[in-house]
Amino acid sequence: MTVPSTYSGRLAAAQRELASRSAGLLIVGLSASLRYLTGFTDEPGERLLLLLVPRDGDPGFVVPGLYADQVRAVTGFERLFVWADHEGPESVLGAALSAFAQAPGAILVEDCLWSGFLLACQKALPARSFGSGTPVLAPLRMHKAPEEVELLRRAGAAADEAFRRVIEGPFVGRTELDVAASLVDAMRDAGADDVAFAPLVASGPAAALPHYRAGARRIERGDVVILDYGCRCGGYCSDISRTVSCGAPARDVRAAYDAVRDAQRQAVDAVRPGVPAEEIDRAARDLLTARGLGDRFIHRTGHGIGLDIHEPPYIVGGNRIPLEPGMSFSVEPGVYFPGRFGIRIEDVVVVSESNAIPMTTATHELTIVN
Amino acid sequence: MTVPSTYSGRLAAAQRELASRSAGLLIVGLSASLRYLTGFTDEPGERLLLLLVPRDGDPGFVVPGLYADQVRAVTGFERLFVWADHEGPESVLGAALSAFAQAPGAILVEDCLWSGFLLACQKALPARSFGSGTPVLAPLRMHKAPEEVELLRRAGAAADEAFRRVIEGPFVGRTELDVAASLVDAMRDAGADDVAFAPLVASGPAAALPHYRAGARRIERGDVVILDYGCRCGGYCSDISRTVSCGAPARDVRAAYDAVRDAQRQAVDAVRPGVPAEEIDRAARDLLTARGLGDRFIHRTGHGIGLDIHEPPYIVGGNRIPLEPGMSFSVEPGVYFPGRFGIRIEDVVVVSESNAIPMTTATHELTIVN
Repeated sequence: MTVPSTYSGRLAAAQRELASRSAGLLIVGLSASLRYLTGFTDEPGERLLLLLVPRDGDPGFVVPGLYADQVRAVTGFERLFVWADHEGPESVLGAALSAFAQAPGAILVEDCLWSGFLLACQKALPARSFGSGTPVLAPLRMHKAPEEVELLRRAGAAADEAFRRVIEGPFVGRTELDVAASLVDAMRDAGADDVAFAPLVASGPAAALPHYRAGARRIERGDVVILDYGCRCGGYCSDISRTVSCGAPARDVRAAYDAVRDAQRQAVDAVRPGVPAEEIDRAARDLLTARGLGDRFIHRTGHGIGLDIHEPPYIVGGNRIPLEPGMSFSVEPGVYFPGRFGIRIEDVVVVSESNAIPMTTATHELTIVN
Repeated sequence: MTVPSTYSGRLAAAQRELASRSAGLLIVGLSASLRYLTGFTDEPGERLLLLLVPRDGDPGFVVPGLYADQVRAVTGFERLFVWADHEGPESVLGAALSAFAQAPGAILVEDCLWSGFLLACQKALPARSFGSGTPVLAPLRMHKAPEEVELLRRAGAAADEAFRRVIEGPFVGRTELDVAASLVDAMRDAGADDVAFAPLVASGPAAALPHYRAGARRIERGDVVILDYGCRCGGYCSDISRTVSCGAPARDVRAAYDAVRDAQRQAVDAVRPGVPAEEIDRAARDLLTARGLGDRFIHRTGHGIGLDIHEPPYIVGGNRIPLEPGMSFSVEPGVYFPGRFGIRIEDVVVVSESNAIPMTTATHELTIVN
């Protein structure tokens, strides 16, 4: 195989993980994990396309004919099982699984592989047991190499620059969707290849809904507005949240803002190698609880980030995984007052040998916009 | 339940399909099917969120706490099993599946549900057999109601308008990515809520790769360029491909273009209720074969379209499903000459009582651009 060395190294690491878990085969569909392991990427779709990584020997692909040349050119793989649209994938899939699933042990599948494809694999290998591929993939993808950190940093810098641009413009009188469109333009102008996800612009009472996107609501003077957005550079994501106030904030808004800012700082300050992930969550939660806002903080503190916007490690109570250098994740406490307002502050950090290196550095002080 | 009537009607239809197949339960994650059945939509993510539609009785949700209020407000559902970030979903999922999987029979899951969630369901119900939800969902979603056709039409009209705008601008000297950005702007200006997918702009030799997106290649005089893009209006997609020539085309390009145009027309003309889907594919393929281009047409003729950009029915050899009024799909024959050029022409059509109604009507004649 003439597989580029970055990818052959990652594939070999995946095979070592398979061996250490006595698993037989790893199956990955169109996903960030496929890009990580082979460099090939496209949107997931209904045509079955699988990377098959056996515990021993060269990995291969099951590919629709339409993709065969591209997969061969991008990945350098030689073991391709190609199926044609008018035949369907079943018989080719069966042959490929027989060839690649020779080693005993569980067959592990990437978590975001579509169920329709898992069911087809289970049907082809009814005697085998199937499990999640995360125990094999997460240890690899969680540890960012320097070239991955560099892309996280570029994505963060573009997000910072987009914030500087968007707060220059007016907010009051515009719709959330209009501000979201400005954010998209600002990210592109700041050098992002693409947005990492559709921006959240949540104003007034909508800011109390942590997963609200952006709507036709017109922003009013006195509103608190949460901006939550991210860029993609070379496949890697940034993710930043800042809360701005349209005019001077009410007293309770200011108090809540200061508490979230302090909680976020306390959580970031708690990051260092060896600390369990849940301790970062606890650091933010303890401060908000001390300010009487513990029950307003209704979500986890953060999520890993890289080629996926959400990936391990999750910064959540119960996750005792120790932080290690190269891990990257968001730190994003928030408080929510239903029907009134919400506040969230978020940066992505990368764990260094001693502490947390933030990928975004836009001001943490409350920004007043017009 | 105070579920809006559109959705309660669709849920009842899904339950009838479950009963007719003696299946016990339908499981749907964040997907177009979830939007179709409940009105709730968001990007799929790592937090387990499932719609559970039992064969009998009210359906319900397993939801992360973060989404509970939104799911309740949007869907009107009362049977919510809510889990918190710091607890994880396992115990709540087990309780919910016990409550909803009372009817015997297979448990059917939406094809694009993430495998990690299917594995969790299989672990919670180890004695049950699992299968694809497509036999239940496709019959519903394939038949578009008048209000759905209206949205397909709006999405198509915006795509037509975007074509008119983009061919006014220059092509030669610009990169494919730059033309793709103009297409995105033109779609938004033409009234699209969003793009249905990242536009394909494939010029020169890249046009011979059917799934190439758009790259840094600078378009040259004499290039053939395939534009393949679509809009989203109210959730529904359009999908159009047009091939343009930068200056007068070479003689073999012209001949290939005319063949594809005629094949596309012949396929559209073959559409009427009762005709098997594969006959539409055959109509296009027969004409291209007669022109000596059969082996250049390396993909199926089309795909269903609606809330998903690709959904049943697939217009492909071997698919004998008879077309019925309300079905919507693309008709998109193409020919590809590796290293040289490619040509594809695509419209989405809706099956009427007697023929095909095209959702896009931009010219089928070869457009010369500068």
